[in-house]
Amino acid sequence: MESIKNKIINICKSSVKASQYLSKTKNTERNKALKLIAKKIIKNKDHILVQNKKDLAIAKKSGLSKPLIDRLLLDESRILNLSKDVLNIAKLEDPIGKILNSRTRPNGLKISKITVPLGLIAVIFESRPNVASDVAALCIKSRNAVILKGGKEAKFTTESIIRIIKKGLEEANIDNRVVSSLNDYSRTSVNILLKMDKYIDVLVPRGGKSLIENVRKNSTIPIFSHLDGICHTYIDKYAKESTAVDVTYNAKMRRTSICGATETILCHKEAAKKILPKLLDKLVKNNCLVKGNSKLKKINPKVVLAKKEDWATEYLDAIVSIKVVGTIEEAINHINVYSSGHTDAIITESSSAAKKFLNRVDSAIVMHNTSTQFADGAEFGLGAEIGISTGKLHARGPVSTTELTTYKYIVQGKGQLRK
Amino acid sequence: MESIKNKIINICKSSVKASQYLSKTKNTERNKALKLIAKKIIKNKDHILVQNKKDLAIAKKSGLSKPLIDRLLLDESRILNLSKDVLNIAKLEDPIGKILNSRTRPNGLKISKITVPLGLIAVIFESRPNVASDVAALCIKSRNAVILKGGKEAKFTTESIIRIIKKGLEEANIDNRVVSSLNDYSRTSVNILLKMDKYIDVLVPRGGKSLIENVRKNSTIPIFSHLDGICHTYIDKYAKESTAVDVTYNAKMRRTSICGATETILCHKEAAKKILPKLLDKLVKNNCLVKGNSKLKKINPKVVLAKKEDWATEYLDAIVSIKVVGTIEEAINHINVYSSGHTDAIITESSSAAKKFLNRVDSAIVMHNTSTQFADGAEFGLGAEIGISTGKLHARGPVSTTELTTYKYIVQGKGQLRK
Repeated sequence: MESIKNKIINICKSSVKASQYLSKTKNTERNKALKLIAKKIIKNKDHILVQNKKDLAIAKKSGLSKPLIDRLLLDESRILNLSKDVLNIAKLEDPIGKILNSRTRPNGLKISKITVPLGLIAVIFESRPNVASDVAALCIKSRNAVILKGGKEAKFTTESIIRIIKKGLEEANIDNRVVSSLNDYSRTSVNILLKMDKYIDVLVPRGGKSLIENVRKNSTIPIFSHLDGICHTYIDKYAKESTAVDVTYNAKMRRTSICGATETILCHKEAAKKILPKLLDKLVKNNCLVKGNSKLKKINPKVVLAKKEDWATEYLDAIVSIKVVGTIEEAINHINVYSSGHTDAIITESSSAAKKFLNRVDSAIVMHNTSTQFADGAEFGLGAEIGISTGKLHARGPVSTTELTTYKYIVQGKGQLRK
Repeated sequence: MESIKNKIINICKSSVKASQYLSKTKNTERNKALKLIAKKIIKNKDHILVQNKKDLAIAKKSGLSKPLIDRLLLDESRILNLSKDVLNIAKLEDPIGKILNSRTRPNGLKISKITVPLGLIAVIFESRPNVASDVAALCIKSRNAVILKGGKEAKFTTESIIRIIKKGLEEANIDNRVVSSLNDYSRTSVNILLKMDKYIDVLVPRGGKSLIENVRKNSTIPIFSHLDGICHTYIDKYAKESTAVDVTYNAKMRRTSICGATETILCHKEAAKKILPKLLDKLVKNNCLVKGNSKLKKINPKVVLAKKEDWATEYLDAIVSIKVVGTIEEAINHINVYSSGHTDAIITESSSAAKKFLNRVDSAIVMHNTSTQFADGAEFGLGAEIGISTGKLHARGPVSTTELTTYKYIVQGKGQLRK
């Protein structure tokens, strides 16, 4: 235990040094490193696939669930996407050194607020191997050092990607300690990492509920996290039928395992008769389990009765709860009680209803006439994301390069004294 | 205990309701309330002074220290300042509804990032009565509800100010539950408040180390806090003599009890001979205790020897530690080790030395040729402040209206589906 602790302290110390070094590099140097990394990922794709097969073999042996194995799996096209993400991040503008505002006070003091890196980020993630390259690239771009602690099930894949990143940094003449792997897959090492507030500025847990709850409870480092993605799509009285059916179906069923998937559909009673039969039919035909009340069951006999806890459940699966509401206010109130504050959408042709919904729903992302599955850093044009924050402080919604910055005030005087 | 808990839950619930109400008010309505409050403070100044005398009498009886009694004391001019602060906050621009950025994606989705209130703020403070009116005004301006928990020693004064604020809100037809007093001065009530994360979005402790440490340890609510103001003034090799002596003296001695007061002076060895004799003379003559090494003692016999812990001490008194350094790098390294990340200044005529210092010192506020005592929201043109944050997340430096906002993403579509 003591030796793991010392090892982790040493990684933290060298990461802090590397972050100070990184803060002096030029944007062009960092972009060069990112482009080299993107190239190397493609060049080494066979090696990554071999390592990924090792992880998959162990995962299948140990009986990992199908969705988890799917998250872990890499193929040629997924590797191409890893590389493309890194290239897209290189194309983003430099988030550091931006003057947020600047003013000259009556006494002549010039006060500027400018963006600076946070310093050292630690990311604890589970099985998705793309997290390693996305996160490393976002941190390099924003001049932060990063410590990566991947999930045991993706060990071989993650380590192979981190090695490639380190080589890319080296070739671009950037201190490769900027990106470190904890390279220890025990619970003990996580718990030690959570106490490294002396070195680490922010911690990002990316994974299931139990990981995030452990981090929340035990971390002495500030965290960005999302606990749940209980997202809603509300079909308003003034919804257009085809938009309602297509968008809501996409929001639920395109990929059911992502946090932006809709888990509850609310439908205005005046839209219900026209829209719900078609929507229920499409969902049920595509093997989505629909939960609702007895009236809904009359529309489609495959509906099963919803329990109270359904409104607070993130299924991450082909399951949806549906409720008919009397007014838009009832929909907004339901969402402000049960939503996890991630993403909620309204389908309506009425601009006043849309305005009311967008203003009053207190979530990180609110949408009008589109699919909650668009809740994603890359879809937002942010290159990629470390995660979607449902907290209100510092980062809300997709966490990308801007959210990995802080600011400092620079005050320039000519000998002014305070009275 | 249970009854206090229920009382606090009820205050939280009514505050949340009031915050939802407040988020629908207009900027002009809120400004009207602030102007009424400013007027009422002046109109009721005699009453406030009577209440303040009650607090002072109890404080003197219980042997409160002189600096604490000075913080507690109000007189006519201080009350005028309370009122002026509130008026200045009314004049600030509305921080809510600002479009931080907006982009249209290739698929036609329009994505806007706009500022919204945090929701409910709780502020735990000690003896300064101006905190009540400053904080309430900042929260009203930024559409946040606030729960105030003042120090027992300022009980009568604080409650009289809060009553005036509530009357001002009422007259402006704003729900006066927007500003609440916990009106309970026990430790128990603080500890219950710290667990109200279901209702309170951010907690601001303003006070001494023990208060802040208790809050940090026990709060389940995110906090803005500053632990210490260990501020430095570095006199560079290229400092102008008069600027160095006057600014450094002001930074230390103008008011020694504020967090922006300089606690350690660093001086380049080549500037020491010329500048330190005069500076030490001025400090010593004005009853400042100077701590340094034996060489410094040779310059002025009143110098006492500094111990290692002096470099990590916030004196908040007429005491200063002084160290001669060989290079600007040594000064920067010393600061990055011992500074609390609040405010640090360089005195120099060299623009390259200034640039190096301002870039490399990792503090919320870095200054060139001016006094660290300017570290203050009002001096920065922010109206007033809830405090100076030394954390890096969300708020760094003065916490004013902008820092009391968060943002949401609004995504507007025309039926787009994610592929």
